Amino acid sequence: MVVKALKWVGEVDGFLELVDQRLLPGGFVKLECRDTEQLYEAIKTLAVRGAPAIGVSAAYGLVLGMQSLKSSESIEQGLQVLGESCEYLASARPTAVNLFWAIDRVRRKAEKFAAEKTEAGLVALRELVLAEAHAICAEDVEMCLRIGLNGEKFIRDGFHILTHCNAGALATAGQGTALSPMFEAHKKGRKFKVYADETRPLLQGARLTAWELQQAGIDATVICDNMAGWLMKQGEINAVITGADRIAANGDTANKIGTYSLSILAREHNIPFYIAAPSSTFDLSIKSGAEIPIEQRAADEVRNFAGTQTAPDGIDVFNPAFDVTEARDITAIITESGVIENPNIDNVAEHLGT
Amino acid sequence: MVVKALKWVGEVDGFLELVDQRLLPGGFVKLECRDTEQLYEAIKTLAVRGAPAIGVSAAYGLVLGMQSLKSSESIEQGLQVLGESCEYLASARPTAVNLFWAIDRVRRKAEKFAAEKTEAGLVALRELVLAEAHAICAEDVEMCLRIGLNGEKFIRDGFHILTHCNAGALATAGQGTALSPMFEAHKKGRKFKVYADETRPLLQGARLTAWELQQAGIDATVICDNMAGWLMKQGEINAVITGADRIAANGDTANKIGTYSLSILAREHNIPFYIAAPSSTFDLSIKSGAEIPIEQRAADEVRNFAGTQTAPDGIDVFNPAFDVTEARDITAIITESGVIENPNIDNVAEHLGT
Repeated sequence: MVVKALKWVGEVDGFLELVDQRLLPGGFVKLECRDTEQLYEAIKTLAVRGAPAIGVSAAYGLVLGMQSLKSSESIEQGLQVLGESCEYLASARPTAVNLFWAIDRVRRKAEKFAAEKTEAGLVALRELVLAEAHAICAEDVEMCLRIGLNGEKFIRDGFHILTHCNAGALATAGQGTALSPMFEAHKKGRKFKVYADETRPLLQGARLTAWELQQAGIDATVICDNMAGWLMKQGEINAVITGADRIAANGDTANKIGTYSLSILAREHNIPFYIAAPSSTFDLSIKSGAEIPIEQRAADEVRNFAGTQTAPDGIDVFNPAFDVTEARDITAIITESGVIENPNIDNVAEHLGT
Repeated sequence: MVVKALKWVGEVDGFLELVDQRLLPGGFVKLECRDTEQLYEAIKTLAVRGAPAIGVSAAYGLVLGMQSLKSSESIEQGLQVLGESCEYLASARPTAVNLFWAIDRVRRKAEKFAAEKTEAGLVALRELVLAEAHAICAEDVEMCLRIGLNGEKFIRDGFHILTHCNAGALATAGQGTALSPMFEAHKKGRKFKVYADETRPLLQGARLTAWELQQAGIDATVICDNMAGWLMKQGEINAVITGADRIAANGDTANKIGTYSLSILAREHNIPFYIAAPSSTFDLSIKSGAEIPIEQRAADEVRNFAGTQTAPDGIDVFNPAFDVTEARDITAIITESGVIENPNIDNVAEHLGT
């Protein structure tokens, strides 16, 4: 079974059920968020993570925020509370673009509704907010599915696939991006094996990708990041598929640190290298990878692990969150609306219809 | 200060002092081994590690073994006890070639001495065993120093050097192999920076290399293994220097897993790639890297860290200890007796005088 990272249970008075990703893979616990404070905490502490999953969760969080209203209150009071929830939830992960996007979308929809349907009451507004959260969720599920359907042909019977970090069901409301073609190929009964880079420093590959592949019944093997090149050299890898954090207009792709090295190693060993990501990942304001800013993360992510010191006190650490893979080293970008082979500025523009 | 992994303190009744590498980098504790049982435990549990350091420690262990003898006992009884210590210590790490080599060397020397000097007593035999252990130690110290002197010219002022795993002072009786050129360049006052790959799964780079560079006052930065390629892409690396576990007749080199990927990434970015290792690392019975057997290690090294589960229960793990870097991707092999540029079967044979 493909895991579901999140699910709304019930109607407007319901709650959001999340897989608590802080406890994986040691424990599989579902977290019930019944107010915005619980959801804020869940987003902030990475109980829920992955840009699409955060966005969808926050949209449902706006439904939770309105549950404190009495049905006798006015639609204006409803909009007021909704606005406060928006501000509050947006501050849970200050750099999460999908979070702001989802919150804004629900808020604008609610404001438009209130302006147009002046006779509507608070109950209708709450139902509208839930419907919009459901719509965002459903679109994400469909986007994931379409990426899978567009990408499954690249996974042939007997293939060994390498992936990095977690761009799976746990990162979305659906069945993920990079892992979605694997889930589709598996549904078709194809036999293949997936190597999951453990993905230091936060081990999303070992903790999350390996776990959700295992849950889905896909043959998965964990490796340390430094073993990928040697596996390729042994002829053990037929294709690499990763997700993307941001894609420039020319197809250069920012993704989890380590992806760049994999792209060079894949080229060296004549292995196709695929990016699977929604079209919304393209940022056409960025011409090439050179313009993508790279977040530096805290040294202690590398200096400590699970409370144990792994490097000397005070030692310098270089800990970039992402790197940039050049478009020329990407065999194809798999999106929900099709596949961009040999990505470059022209076929990216054509694909996006710009 | 360059750390000393081990030191014999006193005369024949002395003891072996080891830096307890199990506690690094969190704690710097010296372990006093006063009998063979303590030393056996230290070798077995990796309190002392690195092939040369294990060999030298075991040689001193034979001195410890003879301390239980009364001076009234015969030289034959001395040889008997020595033989028992040899068997015992050899079983501490069953695949450690240097361990067997050092033990055999002391034992043969003692047997020859007893056969030639029939008038000599037990006291003389014990002194001979200590002298031979000191000789093995001194040769290792000199070997390290010569590698450093031969290799320091490759580290220019302002360079950024990348290294992998730990082939430093902690792995030898002297100042290491891969790190020795760095210590020599530092003694000459050259300013440079070293990036230490943390080296999953056992983190010898983060725990040991970073620590001993820091102790020596060399500017060191820890990175996760998957960050090396991106650093190279940024122009941040001027040279890569690693150690070696075994070198084939054609120059192909087995070293810690991850070294192969670094060699490919270094070639891609036009960065020189050096191996620093004693001539004893060459195994001319092996024609090329394809013949080097690769040890597979326990899955739990990858599935757990410091008691915390990092991958799902029962997930498959691929955990090779080593990989093989091709001679064509090695700029030079730095040994105690000189530098082999562009290693191949001919210049390796010439270097070794075979």
